[in-house]
Amino acid sequence: MPARIDADQLWGDLMALGTLTEPNRPYTRRAFSPLFDEGRAWLTQRMRDTGLATHVDAAGNLIGRRSGKHPARPAIIVGSHSDSVPSGGRFDGMAGVVAGIAIARALGELGIELEHPLEVIDFLAEEPNEFGLSCIGSRGITGGLTAEHLNLENPKGETLGAAVARVGGDPAQLPMMPRRDIGAAFELHIEQGPVLEREGIDIGVVTAIAGVTRLEIEFQGRAGHAGTTPMQGRRDPLVAAARMVSWVQETALELAAAERGHFVATVGIIEALPGASNVIPRSARIVIDARSEDRRLMEEFREMLDVRSRSAAEAANVERSRLACLSDNRPAACDAHLQAVLHQSANTLEFSSKFMASGAGHDMAFISQVAPAAMVFIPCKDGLSHAPEEWASAGALAAGAEVLFEAILEVDRTTTNP
Amino acid sequence: MPARIDADQLWGDLMALGTLTEPNRPYTRRAFSPLFDEGRAWLTQRMRDTGLATHVDAAGNLIGRRSGKHPARPAIIVGSHSDSVPSGGRFDGMAGVVAGIAIARALGELGIELEHPLEVIDFLAEEPNEFGLSCIGSRGITGGLTAEHLNLENPKGETLGAAVARVGGDPAQLPMMPRRDIGAAFELHIEQGPVLEREGIDIGVVTAIAGVTRLEIEFQGRAGHAGTTPMQGRRDPLVAAARMVSWVQETALELAAAERGHFVATVGIIEALPGASNVIPRSARIVIDARSEDRRLMEEFREMLDVRSRSAAEAANVERSRLACLSDNRPAACDAHLQAVLHQSANTLEFSSKFMASGAGHDMAFISQVAPAAMVFIPCKDGLSHAPEEWASAGALAAGAEVLFEAILEVDRTTTNP
Repeated sequence: MPARIDADQLWGDLMALGTLTEPNRPYTRRAFSPLFDEGRAWLTQRMRDTGLATHVDAAGNLIGRRSGKHPARPAIIVGSHSDSVPSGGRFDGMAGVVAGIAIARALGELGIELEHPLEVIDFLAEEPNEFGLSCIGSRGITGGLTAEHLNLENPKGETLGAAVARVGGDPAQLPMMPRRDIGAAFELHIEQGPVLEREGIDIGVVTAIAGVTRLEIEFQGRAGHAGTTPMQGRRDPLVAAARMVSWVQETALELAAAERGHFVATVGIIEALPGASNVIPRSARIVIDARSEDRRLMEEFREMLDVRSRSAAEAANVERSRLACLSDNRPAACDAHLQAVLHQSANTLEFSSKFMASGAGHDMAFISQVAPAAMVFIPCKDGLSHAPEEWASAGALAAGAEVLFEAILEVDRTTTNP
Repeated sequence: MPARIDADQLWGDLMALGTLTEPNRPYTRRAFSPLFDEGRAWLTQRMRDTGLATHVDAAGNLIGRRSGKHPARPAIIVGSHSDSVPSGGRFDGMAGVVAGIAIARALGELGIELEHPLEVIDFLAEEPNEFGLSCIGSRGITGGLTAEHLNLENPKGETLGAAVARVGGDPAQLPMMPRRDIGAAFELHIEQGPVLEREGIDIGVVTAIAGVTRLEIEFQGRAGHAGTTPMQGRRDPLVAAARMVSWVQETALELAAAERGHFVATVGIIEALPGASNVIPRSARIVIDARSEDRRLMEEFREMLDVRSRSAAEAANVERSRLACLSDNRPAACDAHLQAVLHQSANTLEFSSKFMASGAGHDMAFISQVAPAAMVFIPCKDGLSHAPEEWASAGALAAGAEVLFEAILEVDRTTTNP
């Protein structure tokens, strides 16, 4: 089948968007910053050039809309986000937005009028930002932005509500009811992991977006002089924390091999206080990031963690003074029908594909609460993301956009009320 | 035997010296600070009141000297240090200085003229200070202060040599040869550990001052997204570091039980970078503080640590990028004859005593390089030190001073050329 997506223009768009970065720390375009506004202005113009009618919705999402034959039908939406983490890359998020624009462009150039409206969406503030809340736009249109959220303040004292208004949103109008007019939702994203590249596969069809649970454990012991306190009778909380680091890794390896879907667990933060070489620590703290597409497996992990951290404390004669859940997002399943359509589309276009879970969070996790949602992953170099070295090839990006294009045509054709 | 030491005056001296602290963070009187000068002025006056002739030697030690019948004989010295750590206590160091003054006072009041000169010494800057070098005064009179040391700078850019001069020393005159005229050296100190209190023993006779070796291990792995990087194939350096924390503790417990003298090892510093909950660390670092009174045991520990940290790295598929020795002080044995005299003195005075190693460093570790040196420990509350709660009872302090007094009389009497 001949290509429908203009791969060069798609790639050119992505690289052009990437130039809008803080010059001293590429690639940085954080939500709500002046550079973010510049990126949005650029995207708005690009959407208009492609024949899309643009507006910013109440939640601050930039939407480019293409009417279909039946404007009252639920829309097919496709998009991602244009904001980045500090010193991030040029692909995470942006690839999905420019792919949406490329699909709209292809429809225009091929003179295809869909049965359904198509919306290309740049969701607002998917990445962690200075308000401490991610996926702001996708939460917003699914009824997930609460008054409490809108009152969050950044370090300058601006509320999130004011910031949403500043980018063109209208938080006062934010329906506390979820948007009901989405028939199907698609997102293209780099995998952010090593699997597709390692296995030489073109397309990942995402089965579920893993739930993320962050847990903090603190042990309290008794500080003491490292030279004069005999080994016998010490109450060293770092010994308990170290055992938990080992346990988390061993247990996650076992659970990942248990054929119950994607499971990972990581200790990324460890702290011993007071943190002096000649003082036995008085306290030690670890933060565990665990992700599972199977909610029951996550609950089992948490129960084991509770038991094991108590016994680690007992063995070290310290107190497990804290086991706190810092955050807990449930896994989100991708729509089975849309998965099948994506898989079939890849086959039709002769791209290899595999079903896989997403270990990272995405806007589609929220959108899936109000509409059938699905994602396409493309391979990225060395699995790197959130780093300036983040990279995917122009060919991989075009392949992902072709698959999405094919799938959108299929959904549009086969669904009278998608 | 009736008491010879005026316990009330001894205690009063200690408490008076303790009032000279930074008001907002008791008890702080750091070496080279204006408060340190105030403490020295107060001690100088107290020494003079006790009939001692005072001077500051080339290394900046404050010395109060009492002539004996034979002024040319080697001196018996007794002392400790008057500087503190930040937010330290009132006993560590100070107790030994005021005990020396109390002994001189008792000699005066009892009209005893010793055969040998007696020197009460406040050693300069025993604690870690802003020049990053401890035991400055005791190093100085044992030939251990090098030109390199004297060129160390504090954050204000003052050299150590200039600071020593500022407290009355004369670094230009610092003999690069050790002092040869010390016949015997004594130091009273709080134990800084829990053993004497726990066992209900009055006096610790120190057998050796453990050597302190500080080692840093760094592991380098591969950072990655905590959600998207499968467990299989991870290269998480914190896993290796955590294994080493466990190994250090288990091994130190074994070595401490091996009846090869005092052995302890502590991991007080651990760091994982970048230190974000959702990022697999790229590097992890631990600092190990190991102390042994048996140099061969320390060398065995270091060899095992080398082997084990390599295998921990291999098991986690990371690189052990660094195994560095940050500092390495050899153990210092206390003089066997002086130990026996202290033990006998405690018996004579009907104090219980035990032989024990010091896990902490002391000025006597340096003095032992040029003269027979020995130490008396007294119990301290909960083993606490380097904290405002540091405490020893007036009775325990007086008991220690009595034992030192008895030992000094014995050494003076039995040694024509001690």
